[in-house]
Amino acid sequence: MSFKSLDELRAACLDLPAGSFEAEATVAQRQITLTKPQGSLGRLEEIAGWLARWQSRDMPKLDRVKTIIFAGNHGVTTQGVSAYPAEVTVQMVKNFANGGAAINQLARISNAELEVIPLDLDQPTADFTQAPAMSEAEFLAAINTGYEAVDKNLDLICLGEMGIGNTTPAAALAAALFGSDDVQNWTGRGTGVDDAGLKRKIAAIEAGLARHKAALGNPLQIAACLGGRELAAILGATLAARHHGVPVLLDGFVCTAAIAPLARLHQQGLAHVLAAHVSAEPGHHRLLEALELKPLLDLGMRLGEGSGACLAVNLVRSALECHVRMASFDEAGVSES
Amino acid sequence: MSFKSLDELRAACLDLPAGSFEAEATVAQRQITLTKPQGSLGRLEEIAGWLARWQSRDMPKLDRVKTIIFAGNHGVTTQGVSAYPAEVTVQMVKNFANGGAAINQLARISNAELEVIPLDLDQPTADFTQAPAMSEAEFLAAINTGYEAVDKNLDLICLGEMGIGNTTPAAALAAALFGSDDVQNWTGRGTGVDDAGLKRKIAAIEAGLARHKAALGNPLQIAACLGGRELAAILGATLAARHHGVPVLLDGFVCTAAIAPLARLHQQGLAHVLAAHVSAEPGHHRLLEALELKPLLDLGMRLGEGSGACLAVNLVRSALECHVRMASFDEAGVSES
Repeated sequence: MSFKSLDELRAACLDLPAGSFEAEATVAQRQITLTKPQGSLGRLEEIAGWLARWQSRDMPKLDRVKTIIFAGNHGVTTQGVSAYPAEVTVQMVKNFANGGAAINQLARISNAELEVIPLDLDQPTADFTQAPAMSEAEFLAAINTGYEAVDKNLDLICLGEMGIGNTTPAAALAAALFGSDDVQNWTGRGTGVDDAGLKRKIAAIEAGLARHKAALGNPLQIAACLGGRELAAILGATLAARHHGVPVLLDGFVCTAAIAPLARLHQQGLAHVLAAHVSAEPGHHRLLEALELKPLLDLGMRLGEGSGACLAVNLVRSALECHVRMASFDEAGVSES
Repeated sequence: MSFKSLDELRAACLDLPAGSFEAEATVAQRQITLTKPQGSLGRLEEIAGWLARWQSRDMPKLDRVKTIIFAGNHGVTTQGVSAYPAEVTVQMVKNFANGGAAINQLARISNAELEVIPLDLDQPTADFTQAPAMSEAEFLAAINTGYEAVDKNLDLICLGEMGIGNTTPAAALAAALFGSDDVQNWTGRGTGVDDAGLKRKIAAIEAGLARHKAALGNPLQIAACLGGRELAAILGATLAARHHGVPVLLDGFVCTAAIAPLARLHQQGLAHVLAAHVSAEPGHHRLLEALELKPLLDLGMRLGEGSGACLAVNLVRSALECHVRMASFDEAGVSES
């Protein structure tokens, strides 16, 4: 699938499969028979049902789990919104390739494939305080890259990002979609900007919101004007995952902001997405609440790279193994309550 | 080590190694050099330091991780405090041996050895509303079984329990140690007791506290009079782990209550213990707060068997792998902030 216009993309965002409620119900029936007090595995039981619904299988599988990191650069970094220089994006992409980043370790532990997709790193988006971050064509190209990156045969996908300065577009998207009156409440220190940098960040986001006021009624235009290439790719990948029946583990603030437009376009747009963790970046908690997503982990992480998503893979594997392999009361000869 | 009297046991509870602060500090120094914003791995960084302190190694390892489940039966079940009949304890021990329980799946996913140690299942403790649950000799025997079960060569241990009715002694211990005026706030539905059962449970605990009033100043006598064999074994194992330099992942309400006497005897008694999760059993949250233990997971689980502890093993593995294998800024050629 390659979207040629915002209208085509919008149509695809409105045409979303609902998953198999039947498979989910079958999981719930089986869970009752397993050798444990009913409901005692808590959210692990819910996860098994979620996998079943989106894989459309009573007995889901996790043979192929993949983490994809999309990387992008941001013109808005010229406003002094990040603690790190923009060249770190490309340096970290090399670090991913050499196996030296956190995500390399986390992917190995969770037995997930890892792919890194850099998006025109030598061509940052425009500074959104001055112009739309991306033209429609640039935005659609990034969406299409994300969409095409998702293999139909995956059983679970973790989406992640790398992009110096990208908590600024993320906060801008969150504010544009869920309330632009209090930009400071969506804006945090990202990788660790100081007080002056935080002020510059808030000012840049406010300037961006003012400049692109005409776009604020349209979630996809918001993503094009205030977002970034890696955010657009994550949105495209999340849409592809829905169309292909691949459940998604969601990482932190940037990824959540990236896919929020889908929730704005379709009430059930993120039903196939499980929030893996809540980040220490303060806007994330608020954004997850706005999206009614309840995170699995709360460990004070704020790294990106898909690290929180990948860390939760073994929780999902655990949920699946309990569902598939536990004995029933009958099989084990255990008395019921 | 085999304790022959409560005095000998108490002396061992007061004589606790402090771990290596040097190894912990070395971890913190290395974490600063790794390719991530400082502190951005949140609690994973803290976990790496905790492993280092208690293993007394700058570069900790997790080659041998083990889950031990202690199982016991409880005379107080005759008061109608559980939703399940007492024979389920022995039935579940068989289920563990056959690989059909939740913990079997979770141990496999976390690459942990699993051992189940039944403690005189055909001889329940006395009903504590009528007599001390255990004689001093019975209590010490259970403590010693737990102590001897911990191999010095382990790198991490998860402790778990199985015992129909054992949230009743757990709540009794919590109340005896941290406030016996509001037994109802320590008492939950365990495996799923109904309203009438919950009332009987509270009444039994209140009766136990009244009967053993003279013991309430002494944490070890509390454990003997109101506890159970599997709880005592968990206390013994936690003490052994401290003496042997083996960090402990703590499971749910019963396990936490079981080791709370050690916190009462020594201010740093549980410093080598990491709370893996907070259970849905309401007293657990309160007990963890009283012990100043901050859980890693909050997934609504309430199964026991060491399930919450074992589920957290891969979080600990992830923390370790990031610590040991990530590249530094220098190694990776990544610019610093």
